[in-house]
Amino acid sequence: MFTHLKAVEAWLKTTGGLPVNVKILIEGEEEIGGSNLEAYVAENAEALACDYAVISDTSQFAPGMPAITYGLKGLAYFEIHVRGAGRDLHSGTFGGAVANPLNALAAILDGLKGPDGRVRIEGFYDAVRPLEAWEREAFAALPFSEEAFRADLGVAELAGEEGYTTLERKWARPTCDVHGLWGGYSGPGPKTVLPCKAGAKFSFRLVPDQDPLEVEKLLRKHLEAHTPPGVTVELISHQGSPAVLVDVDSPGFRAAAKAVEIGFGVAPVFIREGGSIPVVGLLKQHLKVDTLLLGWGQNDDNLHGPDEKFSLADFHRGIKASAHLLDELSRAS
Amino acid sequence: MFTHLKAVEAWLKTTGGLPVNVKILIEGEEEIGGSNLEAYVAENAEALACDYAVISDTSQFAPGMPAITYGLKGLAYFEIHVRGAGRDLHSGTFGGAVANPLNALAAILDGLKGPDGRVRIEGFYDAVRPLEAWEREAFAALPFSEEAFRADLGVAELAGEEGYTTLERKWARPTCDVHGLWGGYSGPGPKTVLPCKAGAKFSFRLVPDQDPLEVEKLLRKHLEAHTPPGVTVELISHQGSPAVLVDVDSPGFRAAAKAVEIGFGVAPVFIREGGSIPVVGLLKQHLKVDTLLLGWGQNDDNLHGPDEKFSLADFHRGIKASAHLLDELSRAS
Repeated sequence: MFTHLKAVEAWLKTTGGLPVNVKILIEGEEEIGGSNLEAYVAENAEALACDYAVISDTSQFAPGMPAITYGLKGLAYFEIHVRGAGRDLHSGTFGGAVANPLNALAAILDGLKGPDGRVRIEGFYDAVRPLEAWEREAFAALPFSEEAFRADLGVAELAGEEGYTTLERKWARPTCDVHGLWGGYSGPGPKTVLPCKAGAKFSFRLVPDQDPLEVEKLLRKHLEAHTPPGVTVELISHQGSPAVLVDVDSPGFRAAAKAVEIGFGVAPVFIREGGSIPVVGLLKQHLKVDTLLLGWGQNDDNLHGPDEKFSLADFHRGIKASAHLLDELSRAS
Repeated sequence: MFTHLKAVEAWLKTTGGLPVNVKILIEGEEEIGGSNLEAYVAENAEALACDYAVISDTSQFAPGMPAITYGLKGLAYFEIHVRGAGRDLHSGTFGGAVANPLNALAAILDGLKGPDGRVRIEGFYDAVRPLEAWEREAFAALPFSEEAFRADLGVAELAGEEGYTTLERKWARPTCDVHGLWGGYSGPGPKTVLPCKAGAKFSFRLVPDQDPLEVEKLLRKHLEAHTPPGVTVELISHQGSPAVLVDVDSPGFRAAAKAVEIGFGVAPVFIREGGSIPVVGLLKQHLKVDTLLLGWGQNDDNLHGPDEKFSLADFHRGIKASAHLLDELSRAS
């Protein structure tokens, strides 16, 4: 944000004007959910009308390797409650004769994703847009070490969908993760309870062109068919947003690439991101515009951490790129 | 216990002696784990030497239907810890590229028991003694309503191992129940954490002639073969006891059946129990004796509950049966 404000300041100081119209939308609620932003954008769509949005909330791929993020994953987040008998039971007296919601929850969660890393819900992949050949080549050309990634995580081996590299899995393939699960006894030692309820939170990361509402529909159908006998399930939908993909051949994207090259002295790489930036989808929905995600920071900047940092050199390069962006956009077509 | 003390008192008052030697072992630690009992019995095996043990800790099958419990299930109780990356991760940035211990835990737990209610561990059923024909007939003849059982539990349908009735499942078939599971985020709303660890407690109820140590061995082998890639598991064994089965044709069992018939005015039914009574296995192990489980109470006596009760009429019938037991045992051969 600050690099763009500085760029505007520089243009005004130097030429007394701006090469393109600039509208600045400042939101201070992102870290507390930001529930007012969507209503604001929807109500002020006309005043906010524009050709492109620009957000600098992403990172360079590596030091000296600026990046433009052209894809983000979407999200469909759920909570499930599994209920069995009307009360907790003794597993000696009742075990084996009545469904156990914890066993059932395990079966349901295990049923969501197979050992091959693929989501098992029928129709889940129908809308998935495959990676294009140029993307797989570009990702493979990036200086990314699976071995360093593995060692940093402290795992003996990486795991994911068969047939895809780690970057492809992280950036461009849908997946399913359980975020939390609970039920029964978790204190010290043994307790032979057969609990009456259990629950879990899980989500699917989505890719273009998956629709979170369609995924919810498929999931509900899947659960109807795969809920073990003797238990009931309640599914709560917490959050849904579609994935984002910006056309790297669009005039705005090409203008941004040129501006970054001028600002940083090197052409940017085009990357995708596994996370979601909800505002990007929101701007697409209400203003019908693509967002140019120009990241100036580094992956190890420790965003929101107690030791958050931002290199001054990158700050200056970012200002230069931001200033040139306005110029490039004014000549883009 | 009290009915047997009263019976001894009656014999001494009436005849000045007892028809058989009686040794009384009083343990007051059962509800706090009873960790001293085994050492005591082991050290005093000679002093405690006997032909049969008698415990009245079980119930009648129904009012007016006294029962002798000739079988108890055993138990093999475990706790499992599943670990993934060295730290919690963001599911957007890392999801799909590294194993999730919560998904892995679900897969492991689901892998323990199939939708047909059968334990999936190779070799688990090898030592299982099948129900005998007379047992299946006797169980089927008992006044047990699956529908009333289902309604009391508040479930839409009962569930368990295919091919067996509810009483057979409860009393005489091994099973696996998850008692508790935990991991990740369980607070309100969504949180897209990819947690680094998860855990669960689960147990197998065992039947004759399964050996809890052998079950542990088979389980460890199963886990070695079925642990998803990218996670490590630690298995902790909490408790193990074999099942118990008393020969209903033994002299002691026949003597007990006669004594109960005299005390209650009706022949007892022979039943089994899904729970474990660890002291029974302990006496078998150290004293090499079978235990006669003569229950005087009712299933709705609410043992340990705030409204625990015990019918005086059953108390008196129990005393009478206990007194006759000493006589019958003196003539048993």
